[in-house]
Amino acid sequence: MTANNNPYAPSPTDYLSNVNSFQLIDSTLREGEQFANAFFDTEKKIEIAKALDDFGVDYIELTSPVASEQSYKDCKAICNLGLKAKILTHIRCHMDDAKVAVETGVDGVDVVIGTSKFLRQYSHGKDMNYIAKSAIEVIEFVKSKGIEIRFSSEDSFRSDLVDLLNIYKTVDKIGVNRVGIADTVGCANPRQVYELVRTLKSVVSCDIECHFHNDTGCAIANAYTALEGGAKLIDVSVLGIGERNGITPLGGLMARMIVAAPDYVKSKYKLHKIRDIENLVAEAVEVNIPFNNPITGFCAFTHKAGIHAKAILANPSTYEILDPHDFGMKRYIHFANRLTGWNAIKARVDQLNLNLTDDQIKEVTAKIKKLGDVRPLNIDDVDSIIKDFHAEITTPQLRSINGQARTSAIDLQSLDTVEENEPAQKKARVD
Amino acid sequence: MTANNNPYAPSPTDYLSNVNSFQLIDSTLREGEQFANAFFDTEKKIEIAKALDDFGVDYIELTSPVASEQSYKDCKAICNLGLKAKILTHIRCHMDDAKVAVETGVDGVDVVIGTSKFLRQYSHGKDMNYIAKSAIEVIEFVKSKGIEIRFSSEDSFRSDLVDLLNIYKTVDKIGVNRVGIADTVGCANPRQVYELVRTLKSVVSCDIECHFHNDTGCAIANAYTALEGGAKLIDVSVLGIGERNGITPLGGLMARMIVAAPDYVKSKYKLHKIRDIENLVAEAVEVNIPFNNPITGFCAFTHKAGIHAKAILANPSTYEILDPHDFGMKRYIHFANRLTGWNAIKARVDQLNLNLTDDQIKEVTAKIKKLGDVRPLNIDDVDSIIKDFHAEITTPQLRSINGQARTSAIDLQSLDTVEENEPAQKKARVD
Repeated sequence: MTANNNPYAPSPTDYLSNVNSFQLIDSTLREGEQFANAFFDTEKKIEIAKALDDFGVDYIELTSPVASEQSYKDCKAICNLGLKAKILTHIRCHMDDAKVAVETGVDGVDVVIGTSKFLRQYSHGKDMNYIAKSAIEVIEFVKSKGIEIRFSSEDSFRSDLVDLLNIYKTVDKIGVNRVGIADTVGCANPRQVYELVRTLKSVVSCDIECHFHNDTGCAIANAYTALEGGAKLIDVSVLGIGERNGITPLGGLMARMIVAAPDYVKSKYKLHKIRDIENLVAEAVEVNIPFNNPITGFCAFTHKAGIHAKAILANPSTYEILDPHDFGMKRYIHFANRLTGWNAIKARVDQLNLNLTDDQIKEVTAKIKKLGDVRPLNIDDVDSIIKDFHAEITTPQLRSINGQARTSAIDLQSLDTVEENEPAQKKARVD
Repeated sequence: MTANNNPYAPSPTDYLSNVNSFQLIDSTLREGEQFANAFFDTEKKIEIAKALDDFGVDYIELTSPVASEQSYKDCKAICNLGLKAKILTHIRCHMDDAKVAVETGVDGVDVVIGTSKFLRQYSHGKDMNYIAKSAIEVIEFVKSKGIEIRFSSEDSFRSDLVDLLNIYKTVDKIGVNRVGIADTVGCANPRQVYELVRTLKSVVSCDIECHFHNDTGCAIANAYTALEGGAKLIDVSVLGIGERNGITPLGGLMARMIVAAPDYVKSKYKLHKIRDIENLVAEAVEVNIPFNNPITGFCAFTHKAGIHAKAILANPSTYEILDPHDFGMKRYIHFANRLTGWNAIKARVDQLNLNLTDDQIKEVTAKIKKLGDVRPLNIDDVDSIIKDFHAEITTPQLRSINGQARTSAIDLQSLDTVEENEPAQKKARVD
């Protein structure tokens, strides 16, 4: 699919768009460590860092080395792995923190300070002049060590716009690699994000990084509109883990981006590794993959209503914008329910290697829907109904050709065995 | 917070915005029935319908009465409940379906037909002239029965814009109550939604309803920008259950909307019922509430990093845009980990009713962080460290005043008991 006939490609009116050239900063080992259930020992951190590197993230961000003694050691250990991804650490805007950070061997330092009136009053208690002064000192120090530096405000959407633009302009002039916008409380909306990024883009010449919390469910959409507006880098974490209900999830953002920039995304990131990485992190922090997770949720590629099943069987693009194969996943048609239709049952009859006319399939479909009205069905129920119906119709032949009946039974057996390995019952794989 | 000082209030430039006057069409009993795990018997459907009505949704949409015999009976049963919410059913654009639908006693009929080239080719196989002709026939029939009628395209964002506007203009002229835009494959992005709604708004005079699937994680954000653009009604389901990974979730949309339109949302919907409704549906379809669910995810109001905890203790608005009390939920400070800070530990010391100076608290915090570097901590670990530290310091007094030591132990006991009832360990309630 080329950009010209892809309705989801970047809009030509977004001339600053980075939808086709974005980069990922994975913060599972920083923001993710702030998730309620997270405790990563050194070994687990290294395993996660290697998996992210293999997937292809551009940067890996680590917890501040001043957070604890082990955090410092882990930071050094991960810097020594020789990964392709650049290693960052995330510190407060203090010289004390910066001095420790540069010792760890990181490729860059992410500096953050609260700029909203809330954080200035209740967190660090400093005014904008003080913030600017500290920022300049820290930035010049980090730059003198020859590594990357990002300056970010915190709670950017509740900060005074003029204050924000002033400080970003100042740090851009002294040569930061990136400035960051952070929706720390998780409440920005997409068009607001687009406006702020566009405005900031007209003030600074460096790259723009964005960090979105998900308290109101917009973290993926906000990341997307930020890229449309000209942001270049998005902070993500595996499954979105972070403070409260987290940030933009790596997998969900990939679902969003593959539709807009399929060639870029498929050539740059190993999408079929998403499931393994999510399982690795989910296990480490003791959570389940959400049932409704993009891509890897157990029913993300399951089609149920008869009208959907019919069209999907004719052409998957009818009801799928994501191709499950791009992610090493499979598509399912859920046919064992009262909403089923005769096209889905016909596909099952074919899988069972039975011969029925369309009229016969419509008749057996009516029987299946009738039972489905009374109670939940599983595949065995449906197969029994189809098999009984088929046996009734074909009884004369069946008696004379015993071999054929046994063949059907064997096919059925092998199909059932496949099902037992799948996450949910009541489904049949169709490809 | 008034609109004037709320940075998340509707933008004055969106003069068609319905952010402050939107309505909800809950489709848990239609779209939600298409969720892989869903089988609702009559009793469960009635229980869910009553809960939604009590919450305050404006409409409840039911599965087509032609889907199965029981679907027809359930439709009649729910119409007879005498709920405040209007009852709708959702049918294909066929006279056969429409005739059955109007018999059930519904307050309105939602008609849908695929308009994208994909659906026209692989689903119903009809051209736009045929679609317009069927639509007119069905709409005039339903209107003649004196009930509401909505006409929606399906897969609207992959449909030809001119075709779409033509058919919407036609049905608007013959007097539908609403036209619907549906992102059936779950791939629209927020600014694209805004543009389409704005364009449609200039063509029709009736209300606009929107339906967003969540395959690429934008269903909440798309709903929000649709309202900004002038849409009036949003389709939701409890936990977003529906085909594949579902649609805009009721709870998540409430999180989004309460920030933009707090007075409207709080006065219209019983927000403290969200948790119960989600639990009811989650149990019925045998899924867990996602760990990262807005509002009701187990850690949605849990604060962990020392710098967050410090500010939250001073003023919750620093790191919270949602007030947990609005939803009958509570706030937690997660202090038993290596990222903790002395402000969080100070709060715990206060909860334990112990007296330590700030310097002593900093000393005990260092001990806690040291152990937290070695292994995951729980509240008992932290409390033991604090208690031991306190005992060491106060040993002379403790020996002479035995009563005081016992009192501390009792307080500790009662706090631990509270914890056992909470979803995750390692946390302490602070309000």
